[in-house]
Amino acid sequence: MMMREGSIALGDVPLHAGGVLPEARLVWKSFGTLNADHSNAVLYPTSYGAQHTDLEWLIKADGILDPTRWFVIQVNQFGNGLSTSPSHLIDPAPAFTVSHVDNVRAQERLLRESFGIERLALVYGWSMGAQQAYHWAVMYPDGVARIAAVCGTACTSEHNRLFLMSLESALLADPAWNGRTFADVPERGFHTFARIYASWAASQEFYRRREYLKQGYTDLDDYLARAWEPFYRKRDALDHLAMLRTWMRNDVGVVMDGDTRMALKSIRAKTLVMPSTTDLYFTVDDCAAEAALIPGSQFRPLHSWLGHRAGNPVNSAVDTLAIRRAVDELLAT
Amino acid sequence: MMMREGSIALGDVPLHAGGVLPEARLVWKSFGTLNADHSNAVLYPTSYGAQHTDLEWLIKADGILDPTRWFVIQVNQFGNGLSTSPSHLIDPAPAFTVSHVDNVRAQERLLRESFGIERLALVYGWSMGAQQAYHWAVMYPDGVARIAAVCGTACTSEHNRLFLMSLESALLADPAWNGRTFADVPERGFHTFARIYASWAASQEFYRRREYLKQGYTDLDDYLARAWEPFYRKRDALDHLAMLRTWMRNDVGVVMDGDTRMALKSIRAKTLVMPSTTDLYFTVDDCAAEAALIPGSQFRPLHSWLGHRAGNPVNSAVDTLAIRRAVDELLAT
Repeated sequence: MMMREGSIALGDVPLHAGGVLPEARLVWKSFGTLNADHSNAVLYPTSYGAQHTDLEWLIKADGILDPTRWFVIQVNQFGNGLSTSPSHLIDPAPAFTVSHVDNVRAQERLLRESFGIERLALVYGWSMGAQQAYHWAVMYPDGVARIAAVCGTACTSEHNRLFLMSLESALLADPAWNGRTFADVPERGFHTFARIYASWAASQEFYRRREYLKQGYTDLDDYLARAWEPFYRKRDALDHLAMLRTWMRNDVGVVMDGDTRMALKSIRAKTLVMPSTTDLYFTVDDCAAEAALIPGSQFRPLHSWLGHRAGNPVNSAVDTLAIRRAVDELLAT
Repeated sequence: MMMREGSIALGDVPLHAGGVLPEARLVWKSFGTLNADHSNAVLYPTSYGAQHTDLEWLIKADGILDPTRWFVIQVNQFGNGLSTSPSHLIDPAPAFTVSHVDNVRAQERLLRESFGIERLALVYGWSMGAQQAYHWAVMYPDGVARIAAVCGTACTSEHNRLFLMSLESALLADPAWNGRTFADVPERGFHTFARIYASWAASQEFYRRREYLKQGYTDLDDYLARAWEPFYRKRDALDHLAMLRTWMRNDVGVVMDGDTRMALKSIRAKTLVMPSTTDLYFTVDDCAAEAALIPGSQFRPLHSWLGHRAGNPVNSAVDTLAIRRAVDELLAT
């Protein structure tokens, strides 16, 4: 199977919220071969904090995305440390305010200019990846045939925004924050950040079962210190702030004068809406309300005790199989 | 109706976890009149961050606790800023580690020594108050006839402990924390603390409805700044740490060699277990599992969209009525 990696230089990119991303660049990786009529292209954008390598696990012959049949392109969202991010810029502080409109516009250019792809068979996304999938469906109705939105919403809910505010506050509370940038790595801030994130991203049931003991951790403290903190510490704190702000402003309505309902009703892509039944921030209720507005959408909850991470790496063969079946059926339509 | 306020000096109190609370003092307030055979005494301990005045709202003739019939004693838990707390001590740092065993032992002395009460008709508690009610039932099986545990558990769950760890980390991340005490008010720490607390203590549904707009707040930021932050900032940061640690170590099992199940099975008080259906940290599942172990307990969920705060001040006439009915029925048995 063919794998390729590369990036596209986009020049100075005007941002939806105002301002310009200077010399912007998107980093990508592809799996498999684009067929002659370009009908087998699948886009797989990244989720919060993740780079494409963190998310490759589901691309394999018996995986959720099969690269022997589909040409799968992973694309890194702005702010994730690979595509253009505050940590790359000499002066990152002034308004690095990327919205998914900017991510998706740049992705459309990448596909067209680098691959000659005018229409995707599928955008598959988990979490912030699902947000980008929804934006694709609204912004490029002719550019995407199907979207699979796993554990994510088209518009960030008020309670989810509050979670993000608590994470942002955790970083900005660190002594290293000087009101403009971080003078040093925010050690204390990351400590709090990881604990907030861990409490929301897994379910109550996950902790009730103490599964981490079976995974070799000695107790909850050990699990947080070795499993959660390192994942977030891998990224620059300014990049975290950028990704949090993209998530906060996630709303497909912004391309229709703020009318989120109209944007959802405009979707023509075949849409799979797949929340986890124990997801605490992209709740079943929130996802169901959005699915009800999307014409012909399939609402198919994932019955999992893994919370938001039901759709995430290596957690559960059962969950992975359920997602694969749903995506297989979507791709067969 | 008679109201009295006072305190009891307990001397140096040895703590369950080791160490001594020097010159300990419990502050109380009573409503109504103790009858001749002392059979109408109701104890009402305080919840997290609250002092007795914050919780008086439910003591009134048509309220949940009727002082024209019952002699209601509010007692402030250690660490809440009124009863002995780190902020009162010259050198608070060394191990201010109060467990509910200590709170309840001190309360038993207060009742016996100041009021001559040997047996309570009821311990009513919400949240950390419910934790104390459970400890009463386990520690003094002859000392309490009934307990009403609203939105609280007898043992702090793992996921709830993680929430508390994130709160503790938020305060300790502040630049004012010097590893031993706070050199100043932790302004940044309180900012994060309030946002974490607000995200967990109300429900997703509460934020979905944006009820705070109806209450006169202009937006979520305004609501957090004016409604949540001031409540926590009222208390000393060291007192917060003390209360968090009491909550973390909440477990009726500690008085039975760590056997929580045996402790719950030993309860003889008539027990009302009343979780809120939308409580994110004292979940219906966790409360149901405990109720199943308590002989003859009544499990009666409160169907509310207010999350943990279903049992808290002035939020909902419907919820208050449901609690009042359940308590009335409990007291009638």
